[in-house]
Amino acid sequence: MASESGKLWGGRFVGSVDPIMEKFNSSIAYDRNLWEVDIQGSKAYSKGLQKAGLLTKAEMDRILQGLDKVAEEWAQGTFKLHPNDEDIHTANERRLKELIGDTAGKLHTGRSRNDQVVTDLRLWMRQTCSALSAHLRELIRSMVDRAEAERDVLFPGYTHLQRAQPIRWSHWILSGAIAGNPLGVDRELLRTELNFGAITLNSMDATSERDFVAEFLFWASLCMTHLSRMAEDLILYGTKEFSFVQLSDAYSTGSSLMPQKKNPDSLELIRSKAGRVFGRCAGLLMTLKGLPSTYNKDLQEDKEAVFEVADTMSAVLQVTTGVISTLQIHRENMAHALSPDMLATDLAYYLVRKGMPFRQAHEASGKAVFMAETKGVALNQLTLQELQTISPLFAGDVSKVWDYGHSVEQYGALGGTARSSVDWQIGQVRALLRAQQA
Amino acid sequence: MASESGKLWGGRFVGSVDPIMEKFNSSIAYDRNLWEVDIQGSKAYSKGLQKAGLLTKAEMDRILQGLDKVAEEWAQGTFKLHPNDEDIHTANERRLKELIGDTAGKLHTGRSRNDQVVTDLRLWMRQTCSALSAHLRELIRSMVDRAEAERDVLFPGYTHLQRAQPIRWSHWILSGAIAGNPLGVDRELLRTELNFGAITLNSMDATSERDFVAEFLFWASLCMTHLSRMAEDLILYGTKEFSFVQLSDAYSTGSSLMPQKKNPDSLELIRSKAGRVFGRCAGLLMTLKGLPSTYNKDLQEDKEAVFEVADTMSAVLQVTTGVISTLQIHRENMAHALSPDMLATDLAYYLVRKGMPFRQAHEASGKAVFMAETKGVALNQLTLQELQTISPLFAGDVSKVWDYGHSVEQYGALGGTARSSVDWQIGQVRALLRAQQA
Amino acid sequence: MASESGKLWGGRFVGSVDPIMEKFNSSIAYDRNLWEVDIQGSKAYSKGLQKAGLLTKAEMDRILQGLDKVAEEWAQGTFKLHPNDEDIHTANERRLKELIGDTAGKLHTGRSRNDQVVTDLRLWMRQTCSALSAHLRELIRSMVDRAEAERDVLFPGYTHLQRAQPIRWSHWILSGAIAGNPLGVDRELLRTELNFGAITLNSMDATSERDFVAEFLFWASLCMTHLSRMAEDLILYGTKEFSFVQLSDAYSTGSSLMPQKKNPDSLELIRSKAGRVFGRCAGLLMTLKGLPSTYNKDLQEDKEAVFEVADTMSAVLQVTTGVISTLQIHRENMAHALSPDMLATDLAYYLVRKGMPFRQAHEASGKAVFMAETKGVALNQLTLQELQTISPLFAGDVSKVWDYGHSVEQYGALGGTARSSVDWQIGQVRALLRAQQA
Amino acid sequence: MASESGKLWGGRFVGSVDPIMEKFNSSIAYDRNLWEVDIQGSKAYSKGLQKAGLLTKAEMDRILQGLDKVAEEWAQGTFKLHPNDEDIHTANERRLKELIGDTAGKLHTGRSRNDQVVTDLRLWMRQTCSALSAHLRELIRSMVDRAEAERDVLFPGYTHLQRAQPIRWSHWILSGAIAGNPLGVDRELLRTELNFGAITLNSMDATSERDFVAEFLFWASLCMTHLSRMAEDLILYGTKEFSFVQLSDAYSTGSSLMPQKKNPDSLELIRSKAGRVFGRCAGLLMTLKGLPSTYNKDLQEDKEAVFEVADTMSAVLQVTTGVISTLQIHRENMAHALSPDMLATDLAYYLVRKGMPFRQAHEASGKAVFMAETKGVALNQLTLQELQTISPLFAGDVSKVWDYGHSVEQYGALGGTARSSVDWQIGQVRALLRAQQA
Repeated sequence: MASESGKLWGGRFVGSVDPIMEKFNSSIAYDRNLWEVDIQGSKAYSKGLQKAGLLTKAEMDRILQGLDKVAEEWAQGTFKLHPNDEDIHTANERRLKELIGDTAGKLHTGRSRNDQVVTDLRLWMRQTCSALSAHLRELIRSMVDRAEAERDVLFPGYTHLQRAQPIRWSHWILSGAIAGNPLGVDRELLRTELNFGAITLNSMDATSERDFVAEFLFWASLCMTHLSRMAEDLILYGTKEFSFVQLSDAYSTGSSLMPQKKNPDSLELIRSKAGRVFGRCAGLLMTLKGLPSTYNKDLQEDKEAVFEVADTMSAVLQVTTGVISTLQIHRENMAHALSPDMLATDLAYYLVRKGMPFRQAHEASGKAVFMAETKGVALNQLTLQELQTISPLFAGDVSKVWDYGHSVEQYGALGGTARSSVDWQIGQVRALLRAQQA
Repeated sequence: MASESGKLWGGRFVGSVDPIMEKFNSSIAYDRNLWEVDIQGSKAYSKGLQKAGLLTKAEMDRILQGLDKVAEEWAQGTFKLHPNDEDIHTANERRLKELIGDTAGKLHTGRSRNDQVVTDLRLWMRQTCSALSAHLRELIRSMVDRAEAERDVLFPGYTHLQRAQPIRWSHWILSGAIAGNPLGVDRELLRTELNFGAITLNSMDATSERDFVAEFLFWASLCMTHLSRMAEDLILYGTKEFSFVQLSDAYSTGSSLMPQKKNPDSLELIRSKAGRVFGRCAGLLMTLKGLPSTYNKDLQEDKEAVFEVADTMSAVLQVTTGVISTLQIHRENMAHALSPDMLATDLAYYLVRKGMPFRQAHEASGKAVFMAETKGVALNQLTLQELQTISPLFAGDVSKVWDYGHSVEQYGALGGTARSSVDWQIGQVRALLRAQQA
Repeated sequence: MASESGKLWGGRFVGSVDPIMEKFNSSIAYDRNLWEVDIQGSKAYSKGLQKAGLLTKAEMDRILQGLDKVAEEWAQGTFKLHPNDEDIHTANERRLKELIGDTAGKLHTGRSRNDQVVTDLRLWMRQTCSALSAHLRELIRSMVDRAEAERDVLFPGYTHLQRAQPIRWSHWILSGAIAGNPLGVDRELLRTELNFGAITLNSMDATSERDFVAEFLFWASLCMTHLSRMAEDLILYGTKEFSFVQLSDAYSTGSSLMPQKKNPDSLELIRSKAGRVFGRCAGLLMTLKGLPSTYNKDLQEDKEAVFEVADTMSAVLQVTTGVISTLQIHRENMAHALSPDMLATDLAYYLVRKGMPFRQAHEASGKAVFMAETKGVALNQLTLQELQTISPLFAGDVSKVWDYGHSVEQYGALGGTARSSVDWQIGQVRALLRAQQA
Repeated sequence: MASESGKLWGGRFVGSVDPIMEKFNSSIAYDRNLWEVDIQGSKAYSKGLQKAGLLTKAEMDRILQGLDKVAEEWAQGTFKLHPNDEDIHTANERRLKELIGDTAGKLHTGRSRNDQVVTDLRLWMRQTCSALSAHLRELIRSMVDRAEAERDVLFPGYTHLQRAQPIRWSHWILSGAIAGNPLGVDRELLRTELNFGAITLNSMDATSERDFVAEFLFWASLCMTHLSRMAEDLILYGTKEFSFVQLSDAYSTGSSLMPQKKNPDSLELIRSKAGRVFGRCAGLLMTLKGLPSTYNKDLQEDKEAVFEVADTMSAVLQVTTGVISTLQIHRENMAHALSPDMLATDLAYYLVRKGMPFRQAHEASGKAVFMAETKGVALNQLTLQELQTISPLFAGDVSKVWDYGHSVEQYGALGGTARSSVDWQIGQVRALLRAQQA
């Protein structure tokens, strides 16, 4: 039977408070990150109390000055945590009371720690999203600068990792810049969730919903998924076999065993972080699942997730910017990787332009590919006579098909790989960057 | 050694195509859902080809009529799949060719199946998101109607599942209506991703990014997380111990073993689907992680995920609407569950209004709670003299504190549980619903 | 164009090494946890080198003494990290060289850091699993002690959170002890993965597979899922509405706002950690997905996951042990929650024993439940005559059905809720505990 | 206000049962897969009832014959589902009653549908795990056969996707065979969970724990993670740039647009399924998180997860077997990809064998690599004099280092890439296969 005085069975701990529970319960180890926004929030709240007649002007002033002093201690690294400071809110309030006495007790009239937690986190995320946005813009700017300078470099486009058609190197860069661009989402998140322009509609919901956290973690997960794909491409392009690009030494590491090696550690870490970041998103949603409404301590899990993910994103975006801006490209290898069979689709289009339905033209071109393979020659080395055994529509002008530069220029539709289209994409992304900064 | 003619080792299959591979590769079993949008897309594309001079007016007309005929066959259930129809695009093109001959082959000039897949899916999701939005509006409307009709019912608000303060039943309903309301996200998704108002900026990115799929799956996951929490609350409120609500028979199931039982199966299923839906989101992101750029067959996984999640969301939203609109509430039990100790915060506020700092007032109220517990009486049964031993600020008007109706009316700030605040919330949600429908 | 000298575009960093990349790449911040096993591994390896003739006896002795000195510095907290110590292996080797000179360079003959990383982690996990096993045994021991002492307390068993049948409180405790018991898995994990009894079969696989990490993370996830369910039960049982149990103050927290509240923070945190732990498992698998074979830097993600999860499990198991061993139960409330309708199944069995097929008996009992509801009386207050209108098989001995103690004693099959069965379960779990310790 | 007669607000449905709820609740669409094991379980149960005296011998015989008849109808496809058959258990019992009358009602004495569900699923998984084991053995057998036949083919080993050292092709194959080998886990799973040799210890736990499901889903996830990595390697090895292997046509697909392409769809699908399978595992754990103990309808989610994953695994294992057994290797390209710089580690070992500490030797070899790069020659074209400027330990016998065959033969330790070591690995895997079949 459980007696009044406590446990009868097992257990390691004797006394009124289990020290492991205390540590388990305490969030101060990580929520001290919130010191600045906690004070910012309390200053705003004390003004609200004064306006509502719950604080006199003099009391408010005392509180504001006290909070400024607390902030100063944090900023200078002189704030001393006490063993009983279980979270940042308790710590700041305890210190305020030491500084200004009982008036400090009035600051919490009508608000609970649950309110403070969620308000602080929203404020912190507003700052953080803004910093991440800047890192992201820097990355995209590197990419678009590079795309502009290198738009005359052609190399193979791949689908299924099989060589498909010639494309501009800049076209690849921009596919990353665009795919990795969650600026819109980010802005929307800021606008909807964090600018406090709107008032939370329902007090129960306000303390317990963590949509702004979940959406931030998902934004980060999706962004990392894009970056993991770009990293994968660059790792492949940097293999001996592809040899299209070479990582700067600043972002590579040698092998402890094999003297000849230079490993793309930066890219591998970028790729790997997609897992970590998504794991945090998955963990938070699992924690939220089936939770009774309003505040439950389970929600405390949100903060470590957000802090870790924000740190990871900050490092990843900056390292990716560094990688992109210092990457060398091997133009000759890129050019060398282009081969006439990648123009087989162009050959089909040649026939389409002479009036053949595409499906037939596709088949005719396939026959030419097969004929070249059988004869052991490149596709562009088939003679006109040989081509004419496949279709009488082939004529002398077929020779123009075998020009890679001409090939890419065909794709002038918006989004394509023609020079004009790539220029248009560069313009679009630049406009987006400008709009973001405004 | 692997010979030209194939395998030398093990394996089950002999012949030129492995039938299990064929089935593994084929998507027709589920992408037949896309028949309508595939034809819609092809009709639009043929008009584009005519405008570009790649189809004559007569050819375009033949194709359009042929596609209408194909659509008719699907609609009437007479379309016959052939064993070689590996996906819906192949099936429709094959049938079109049977109906109108070689002209059909011109339809695919300049587009790949990868383009078709992604365009079809976007079109299908536009339809589906619109249907889901309607279901969601219906759910929210049920909730707000109910909140309006029952706004005079009080019951305990909980945090940590401990009774906290009296609130209006409508306040709880609206916390769900608001939390579960992703109408904004949905609309943003539609606008950004699916209305085709904007052109995809980059052709490589266009065929391989699946942000619109990932965002849909995440929207569904987050929405289900909210619904799982509302379901959890209602399951608890429906236990014998709480007895606040009773599910309609239409949404309950009996036990095969225990004759007296009525189980809240509908709510348990709603709660459980959060896992399933999120699993699809997790699966897709894992599939995307580290994938080389442009199209890879891995992307085929998107469709089954989207179809299953759309079906699940559709059922969940409709069942939840049914549950909410037929739920009975037990007003007497709700009233009975209110107890004076839930007014301890109000007791503290009473002292605050008399000038005591909140932290001291909180402590004083805590002493009163302890005194009542010690004496074995309810908090409101302490005499004025007894209260005055705690603080001389207590006076005769403390008796007003013990009125639950008066208590809730204090929370008149926007988002609070006062009648006026609840009315305001109802108005806000109704306005949102109207804005959505416009 | 990218020049030899580096980047031309954007980017924040100038110089030969990007400091953010250095920090991004470095693992020393967390892998210093491995100092002890790293030295243990190196000592074993130097013995291997000596046996293979690659070190002389004297060299080996110098290395062993040097390593002992390094270990001493770590143990005493005097080891000084240098800025270039990017991981624990580099740090230890650097220090060894400072202490014993060039002979240190021989220690790494024929092994790479990738080997060291994976060996160290396996050694560390062997230690950690053993510590976690001890915590787990302590928890299970608390539970079984408690189950033994309180086996005469009856309370309602629930399915679907609806009251189902009377059960022993010990039956509930043991369901947790058994469900939460992954001792077998753990042991198997240790045996298969970590005791090094077997040699890794393939060197490529050895450095790149992380099954032992993934399995540990999954074991932890599954264990946490069980504990989250037990925590949920106890949170419910501790509500005002259920009032079956009361958490000790050592594991509860008060409200900053509401003086009357005592929140089950410990249980809520236990419940929430299931998400965090599983998030790590999900993250690791996502990182592993599609990774090329052998070592890639992506694998570095394994360590933080393992360290964090091991810490979490250690705290959770100890706190749960504390919660269980200090929990008070309210016997009267448990008894009071039993009601005659929970014996409706027993009523059906009564008829079965008189020869009625179960399906008919179930229906008859259901009629009795309905009759009692209609008349507004408890099921056991129906008169014999009334029961006989439902079935003539009812006789005077039906009164024995209404005894809760008698009811639970019927379930004497192994695993049931009869006293003898509960005793058997206690014996089984105790035997398991003994077997583990042997 | 909610009236007795139902809803007053919104909602689509009128009548006593919501048809969408009925469909939402019903599991018959997928649990009909369980017909055979459901009957098998019922037959065993009826024997138990007879032994316990709850059925006469004649009754048991009638039930057994009836169940055989039901089974026959399922096997012949003549079983007709009724609209009220919400699950397979209800359907079979309903049909049994039609066939043998009221005796059918006795079959369910003392067991609930929750018991049946979990027993059926365990029986089904026993069958399924056995079939999957056979597919897995077939895959491993293909791999080991191939490894044996091709053990003289050398090609580059990679770490970080950078060429590292020469290895045997068979060494790579076996790394997959071993990594992908969860035979032990599988067997353990079968033994512990599904052979019913042991009795479930606790009745509450028995109906609500789904560890055997979660462990199966995790086994599948981990297995798929390995296969996704093997698929990634083969996709890379099959690119134009690597050209080490060529997929059989039976497992490739052409492009609808580009006539020259052959895409590795089979491998891409294998890689992608890791996401889908893990998504199911993640979903189930999220569903289980925080669920109250004993049966809740949420648990119904287990079956679709298991069925889908079992189907996926079955297809993936068979297709992978086909891919491996028909894959062609390009020996010349593999040989051609070996380059002298991959022997830099061997060059260091040469110096180690002459007495130089490894760290110095590593540095010396690095200097040689740099010297060769600077001079623009291959590492093996440095003259002895040039090498001696780096270390006087270099002598004429250094020429033996430049033999790839000799290089791999050095790694004769168990698990290495020497012929003898590869043979040993083949023997180990064959022994494992034999042990499995016994």
